[in-house]
Amino acid sequence: MAIEGSLDVNGDRVAKSLDGLITLVKDDLEQVNRTIVDHMHSPIALIPQLAGHIIAAGGKRLRPVLTLASAKLVGYEGDRHVKLAAVIELLHTATLLHDDVVDESELRRGRASANALFGNQPSVLVGDFLFSRSFELMVEDGSLAVLAILSRASAVIAEGEVLQLITANDTETTVESYLQVICSKTAALFAAACRIGAVVADRPKVEEDALAAYGLSLGIAFQLIDDALDYSAREAELGKTVGDDFREGKITLPVIHAFHAGDEEEKAFWRRCLEKLEQEDGDLERATALLAKHGSVTATIQHARQYGEEARSALSIFPDCPARQAMLDVIDFCIERAY
Amino acid sequence: MAIEGSLDVNGDRVAKSLDGLITLVKDDLEQVNRTIVDHMHSPIALIPQLAGHIIAAGGKRLRPVLTLASAKLVGYEGDRHVKLAAVIELLHTATLLHDDVVDESELRRGRASANALFGNQPSVLVGDFLFSRSFELMVEDGSLAVLAILSRASAVIAEGEVLQLITANDTETTVESYLQVICSKTAALFAAACRIGAVVADRPKVEEDALAAYGLSLGIAFQLIDDALDYSAREAELGKTVGDDFREGKITLPVIHAFHAGDEEEKAFWRRCLEKLEQEDGDLERATALLAKHGSVTATIQHARQYGEEARSALSIFPDCPARQAMLDVIDFCIERAY
Repeated sequence: MAIEGSLDVNGDRVAKSLDGLITLVKDDLEQVNRTIVDHMHSPIALIPQLAGHIIAAGGKRLRPVLTLASAKLVGYEGDRHVKLAAVIELLHTATLLHDDVVDESELRRGRASANALFGNQPSVLVGDFLFSRSFELMVEDGSLAVLAILSRASAVIAEGEVLQLITANDTETTVESYLQVICSKTAALFAAACRIGAVVADRPKVEEDALAAYGLSLGIAFQLIDDALDYSAREAELGKTVGDDFREGKITLPVIHAFHAGDEEEKAFWRRCLEKLEQEDGDLERATALLAKHGSVTATIQHARQYGEEARSALSIFPDCPARQAMLDVIDFCIERAY
Repeated sequence: MAIEGSLDVNGDRVAKSLDGLITLVKDDLEQVNRTIVDHMHSPIALIPQLAGHIIAAGGKRLRPVLTLASAKLVGYEGDRHVKLAAVIELLHTATLLHDDVVDESELRRGRASANALFGNQPSVLVGDFLFSRSFELMVEDGSLAVLAILSRASAVIAEGEVLQLITANDTETTVESYLQVICSKTAALFAAACRIGAVVADRPKVEEDALAAYGLSLGIAFQLIDDALDYSAREAELGKTVGDDFREGKITLPVIHAFHAGDEEEKAFWRRCLEKLEQEDGDLERATALLAKHGSVTATIQHARQYGEEARSALSIFPDCPARQAMLDVIDFCIERAY
């Protein structure tokens, strides 16, 4: 079955590796999308307009799909996973709205970002609204365990975003700090999304933890590739502006790698561009050339592969089944979209 | 007993009317303050720095005090009200941080606002962090009823803020729209803060509703006076910049009143200043003079008095006791701070 429309896949082989997951949860995912649309409703028309702009733009719905697949993997037969998958996407959307304000991004999912189109003010407030709505939905579901997981994840995401802000423009940022940022801002929600699949099914702690470990490693791999793509992808395929991280002075693994491998003159170049943000025409091209010279994008992808292996191994406690296979394939999808 | 330090009271008579409430809950309030400080902690140092800046600035702690007083009024003897009062203040602080970003405010509680001092980006993210933390604290408390009340209140607050943004710069805004804004952005949290006092004590619905009705009317009265003070207070006493609403083109009741009472030339003045935001030296003084000419501040205070009476009458189902008296006195405090 072919994947249609908005999925930002780059070719057949890659498409196929996400295909299994989407096919697996197709009916549930349609319900999730309906639940999301229902819950972004408000009598204040600007709210569904702005929220609808970002939600309708699509995206892969990777996080809610992981909740649905995790529930399927552990044999869950109820319907709570649909509502909770919608909660995950609403939370994610709220953080995207605030991220784009913080980063002053102009593109999101290949369209004008909400802040570029509607302004920063409603983007902040509609983010708050979606955040609150996601908690209202959790309360409807009625599980304190789920509320604990997602209120914790939300706090960790905010901490990661603040840490990212602090390490921005600091070329001395360590690999460890960088990993802490991406664990918090990205992987924590992947982990929570997967863990909830086991929680709704009331499965033993060991399965809950295995799914969370899978989600965490997958999320790290996903973000590593995202950061590699920021220096290597073609804009139309990525749905975002290439070089955003460079222009903002964000310190990601490709840069950390190239900085440490570089000579004094190269280090001075990175400091001028990323610390002082004194950038000229041709600097992004030079940055890309330096990454190529030192194999920094390749090294980042290699790092992602290692986390991919950890994600793979976390699923080894589950018996082979279509859900497990699809969740293994998604690891390849996350990494191979770099090519 | 005298009130010390940071309370922004204007004279003995007024101070006395809040004094009863503070004395009543003094020990609990100290615990609330400790709980707040504990829960804004994070290994990311910027988070407690920024959160501490706004929280240490004080403010009246009116909302958590209302939770404590409401619990006392219905005879609650446990300790859950302390944690939940801290939740209320953390939620309130999160909305203040986002408000100040949205409004581009430079002053808050008489000090530089967090956004002015630390920038918009960390203010948005630390707001998100405090929001998440407040939900983590609610989960620790373990009551789905409380989570339902406060997730709903948060969504309503965000709706109110968006509606305020939409009605800004629109001199045709109706009194009804204005009341919807202040009910949502301000009074909803007052109502929730009071309702929770009855919920923790497991009191009958009629008492819960009476406390919520008291909080709602008190919150409306409080915001009406706040909007009146924006045109009439002395800056040092208010702890914020007088004329902020005017400069931002916010449409509040004093303006709606003066606009409707004004002739065509006056209406043109308001449109130029508040819709087109074409403001010149002397415009704020002219606005204040027009409000005086039409008695618009007085009319706003009169409106607040009516809501004060509703708040008073909501408490009539409770027997006379020190808690009830203190909660009646706080109505006068909220209104009389206008003088």
